[in-house]
Amino acid sequence: MESHEIKYTGATSTFYFNGSFDELKTLAPIEHTFLITDEHLMMHYQASLKHWPVIVIPPGESSKSLDVLDDIIRQLIALDAGRDALIVGLGGGVVTDIAGFVAGIYKRGVRCALMPTSILAMVDAAIGGKNGLDIGDYKNMMGLIRQPEFLLYDYELLSTLPEEEWVNGFAEIIKHACIQDEDMFAALEQHTLQDYQEDPKLLDALIRRNALLKAGIVQADEWEHGERKCLNFGHTLAHAIENVYQLPHGHAVAIGMVVAAKLSAGLCGFADQDRLVNLLQQYGLPVSFSFDPDRAVQYLLADKKRAGNKVSYVLLEGIGKAIIRPLPISEIKTAWT
Amino acid sequence: MESHEIKYTGATSTFYFNGSFDELKTLAPIEHTFLITDEHLMMHYQASLKHWPVIVIPPGESSKSLDVLDDIIRQLIALDAGRDALIVGLGGGVVTDIAGFVAGIYKRGVRCALMPTSILAMVDAAIGGKNGLDIGDYKNMMGLIRQPEFLLYDYELLSTLPEEEWVNGFAEIIKHACIQDEDMFAALEQHTLQDYQEDPKLLDALIRRNALLKAGIVQADEWEHGERKCLNFGHTLAHAIENVYQLPHGHAVAIGMVVAAKLSAGLCGFADQDRLVNLLQQYGLPVSFSFDPDRAVQYLLADKKRAGNKVSYVLLEGIGKAIIRPLPISEIKTAWT
Repeated sequence: MESHEIKYTGATSTFYFNGSFDELKTLAPIEHTFLITDEHLMMHYQASLKHWPVIVIPPGESSKSLDVLDDIIRQLIALDAGRDALIVGLGGGVVTDIAGFVAGIYKRGVRCALMPTSILAMVDAAIGGKNGLDIGDYKNMMGLIRQPEFLLYDYELLSTLPEEEWVNGFAEIIKHACIQDEDMFAALEQHTLQDYQEDPKLLDALIRRNALLKAGIVQADEWEHGERKCLNFGHTLAHAIENVYQLPHGHAVAIGMVVAAKLSAGLCGFADQDRLVNLLQQYGLPVSFSFDPDRAVQYLLADKKRAGNKVSYVLLEGIGKAIIRPLPISEIKTAWT
Repeated sequence: MESHEIKYTGATSTFYFNGSFDELKTLAPIEHTFLITDEHLMMHYQASLKHWPVIVIPPGESSKSLDVLDDIIRQLIALDAGRDALIVGLGGGVVTDIAGFVAGIYKRGVRCALMPTSILAMVDAAIGGKNGLDIGDYKNMMGLIRQPEFLLYDYELLSTLPEEEWVNGFAEIIKHACIQDEDMFAALEQHTLQDYQEDPKLLDALIRRNALLKAGIVQADEWEHGERKCLNFGHTLAHAIENVYQLPHGHAVAIGMVVAAKLSAGLCGFADQDRLVNLLQQYGLPVSFSFDPDRAVQYLLADKKRAGNKVSYVLLEGIGKAIIRPLPISEIKTAWT
């Protein structure tokens, strides 16, 4: 196991790469620790989790609700969790979102740690302290920005990750390459998903690179006033279509990146649309999708990143070079049509 | 109107004393402001509130629930409240608690201001950034510590405050005097509730003194590691009995202070029990109550301020001189019996 400290404004997160459940026993003493995970993961890892009290929630985005929150808080009270509690979220983005939020508000805030179990959570969702619950179709309408005390990476957990979730996770990896890491983009072009699945060292290096890339961006702009917005590359459209059409998040992001790349070609001379399309296809991701632009724009209008009639849109000047442009909603609608 | 800035760790709160709704128009521009208030206050102040969109909740502690939270968030979405929203809580402690929490989590946090309408909120609940929602009988199981941007005091709002709420509020004023301000204790002995109700200058001075006293304690210990716990004088027992017996908060605190004073006499030589009892009675507060100690201790066991088998109990060495002692639960039970 190797550790890496990231200092944010008011907190420090320690990243433990190449760790395991054995190390969780040291990091999360049984007396104060309460695990939150979902039913699927509980089924797979029950034996490893037997050391701690575990709160189990249904899998999937629909668990990011006030009903599930109510249930978790009641269980924590029943388990006698005090202000000295450490809440550990073991799961993908849904679990890390809920666990982070619960830790942020339970008894006005207790300690939080995350053990991401999907590629997406390992390189993106678990990093940066953002968490959230949904209200109906509106995602993350409630949430906090609050850094976890530590993140523990156990790549063994990926052995039970379904193939489509590997593909989903690589959408965010390709996004990171697009906005800030041209070398990684080139390396991804040289490999396939299978290479990473079969070579633990290659995978460790990739996940570490992505986790620290994201942590670095967050570190520079924890409250999302500027640079952090780059992480939204591909996400403006993704958020507007993923719920309506029930698309996997990574698919929606891939489609969103292609549309943003087209916009970038027109607005800031981006010349590598084809390379991006090819890379996405190489990792099994979709590059186009037929959607209703009116409905997507309607979603955008209710979205939280809007200031007035413009939306901050992330564009590329080149591979590895993102810029943020406020675009009028009318211009976005044209691009989406 | 006079303003007073208090700088906390990561935020500044401005206190505007002797203000009015007219000044709220300047401080809270209509484009971005969303008021939260309760049905009673809406009835009294509808004309003054017509400038802003208002979210109205049912009065009383039962509104500090996830159902009301869900309703408020849906209304904010429908009102198109963005990340630049300013949420203004206009009300007593229940409204300021809900408004503070909503502002802390809506779209991962928006601006918050409070306009307290009760004595209790003006001198205590609205100050210090603590907010909370309840889960069943357990109070403030969810919440945050997050400072409001400003607090606006309009004493005209007290003209509709029921007499019993004046009495309730004075319990916290007497508490402040007990823990940190012997001169104020003496001044309170020289006056009656009616004096303060009839003399705006006397009232302004008292409220200002209490608001800044509390803000000063919070400033010194925002995250409640030490000194801030003094504010819990009388509250250990109060929290344990107020729900079970449906006692008004001020009554429960008064009873709790008398019990804490008795404990203080035995444990640290406190000699002014009689003065405290007399002062509480002078302001219409109860000084004894027959309750089931087993049930109260049971509540204490689930409360959030517990670390292991001991509870931090606030005692007095003298009027104006509080100390915090970790007491075993068994000793507390004896004192409560």
